[in-house]
Amino acid sequence: MKTIKWEEDRLLLIDQRKLPDKLEYFECKDYKDVIFAIKNMVVRGAPAIGVAAAFAVALADLANEDIKKAAEEIKSSRPTAINLQWAVERTLSSDSPLEEALRIYREDMETTRAIGEHGASIVEDGDTILTHCNAGALACVDYGTALGVIRAAHSMGKRVKVVCDETRPLGQGARLSVWELQMERIPVKLIVDGAAGYLMQQGKIDKVIIGADRIARGGVVNKIGSLMVALAAERFGVPFYVAAPRSTFDEENSIYDTVIEERGSDEVLYYGGCRIAPKGTEVVNPAFDIVPSDLITAIITEDGVIDPI
Amino acid sequence: MKTIKWEEDRLLLIDQRKLPDKLEYFECKDYKDVIFAIKNMVVRGAPAIGVAAAFAVALADLANEDIKKAAEEIKSSRPTAINLQWAVERTLSSDSPLEEALRIYREDMETTRAIGEHGASIVEDGDTILTHCNAGALACVDYGTALGVIRAAHSMGKRVKVVCDETRPLGQGARLSVWELQMERIPVKLIVDGAAGYLMQQGKIDKVIIGADRIARGGVVNKIGSLMVALAAERFGVPFYVAAPRSTFDEENSIYDTVIEERGSDEVLYYGGCRIAPKGTEVVNPAFDIVPSDLITAIITEDGVIDPI
Repeated sequence: MKTIKWEEDRLLLIDQRKLPDKLEYFECKDYKDVIFAIKNMVVRGAPAIGVAAAFAVALADLANEDIKKAAEEIKSSRPTAINLQWAVERTLSSDSPLEEALRIYREDMETTRAIGEHGASIVEDGDTILTHCNAGALACVDYGTALGVIRAAHSMGKRVKVVCDETRPLGQGARLSVWELQMERIPVKLIVDGAAGYLMQQGKIDKVIIGADRIARGGVVNKIGSLMVALAAERFGVPFYVAAPRSTFDEENSIYDTVIEERGSDEVLYYGGCRIAPKGTEVVNPAFDIVPSDLITAIITEDGVIDPI
Repeated sequence: MKTIKWEEDRLLLIDQRKLPDKLEYFECKDYKDVIFAIKNMVVRGAPAIGVAAAFAVALADLANEDIKKAAEEIKSSRPTAINLQWAVERTLSSDSPLEEALRIYREDMETTRAIGEHGASIVEDGDTILTHCNAGALACVDYGTALGVIRAAHSMGKRVKVVCDETRPLGQGARLSVWELQMERIPVKLIVDGAAGYLMQQGKIDKVIIGADRIARGGVVNKIGSLMVALAAERFGVPFYVAAPRSTFDEENSIYDTVIEERGSDEVLYYGGCRIAPKGTEVVNPAFDIVPSDLITAIITEDGVIDPI
């Protein structure tokens, strides 16, 4: 199962809005379809957004659109994940956008497996690992970064158990990570986001592994709630790892300069289709937060396990 | 509006499962109705549970039931909030359970106002206060503990703004606290539980005020998620207050001896009536967590603002 497929000059994306109840592909015939898909989180997860964006540039090129203009529009679909800009710029500056997109596509699959291999070396047999959001196959072409580490450890015969926090507002933990792990038959339990600290206090969590949308000087940006998980991990001595490809790194800038996307109120006011607060309630909905480097044990990349920057 | 009313030998409880969409009273004709109401969270919030339990003993007495047996059943409705045991024992050992229950009822209203008055002195004009769960009128006979402090400050003319985290799994923040504050026309915004840390990091929160289900040596037990809010408050230098009546205190025992209630999976798997994870997903659902005393700035009681124990 691939999160993203390129077939007959069309980009097919698993429609992640419909999971876990329906597994359907969303078809993108042109670059504007891809922009819609990114903005509306048909496809989400930093590496997957990057790959999709690369193909968006390729689609614009195949349709003889103004490719520079298209590239600017694609880059502004969502502001926070650095992989989006990286992929667009790389595809735009190549001789053949489609070939570059296909190269980015293949590299993503190699990268996640390399991350899995390096990360599996820090996983011990019997570990209970907590993860946040979805940094799995659905956040990449396949396999995953944080879940790639878990898949790799599991396939080596290490008996790992996973705790997923649901990750409000959009529930990527509950809907996507739980679903992936159940399909792999890796033991998984679901908790609400506020329960992670309690489980760590009780000694139930051996490690935390999350993904990242941007890694820069001073820390890591990831899905909202990551910071609070990291603070609990620090308090209770639980190692806290970030698994992410090199394309996530921005070594020039401070992480505190990251534009943190704010999304609409309905994401918070509704969940699973049901309203959960009084109508018209005012909401603050930052989609990401910043985990300072002092809270991060190490970063697992395709090149190895390194210190935070 | 009273959360609990005694009329014509019946106990009426606002049915908090139906808020915010419906405001209805659940009628208890005998003590077993009250046990049902407590177990199923028709009534919830430690002080309110205590008052309801006192009337349950009174109902058993009026019906000439085996009052000691009834008291044991009532006490075992839910294990964590200490107010339940305190109220049952006080009513049981009195000459007239009904008169004692009515006394407990009146004292609750005096207590919350005293807490409000003491607490309002620590609130500054212009403060943005974050609160967790519902420690408002709905957690007491009326007025509230944490929300009592906010109501008192507001009525003194201090311009306070409130941020409520939704408080999964049952959404007492989103459904109950937001609703109460909107009715009082106190500015309120809703966030997901995982966003509290980010807002504090951004300097958007001036204070945290929460309620408590039990205060003992070493810390405070409150709704799951309180611990993670406290850790974020510590990291970002945000004062963290607990507002609770003296009846919440258990000065003999360690807070770590508290029985932390675990509740059913459906509370996590569903929200607002909609399923939010794959069917059959395994869940861990602790209803409370422990906030260690070192994370608590002060406790606001009816007798004044004191240090944690």
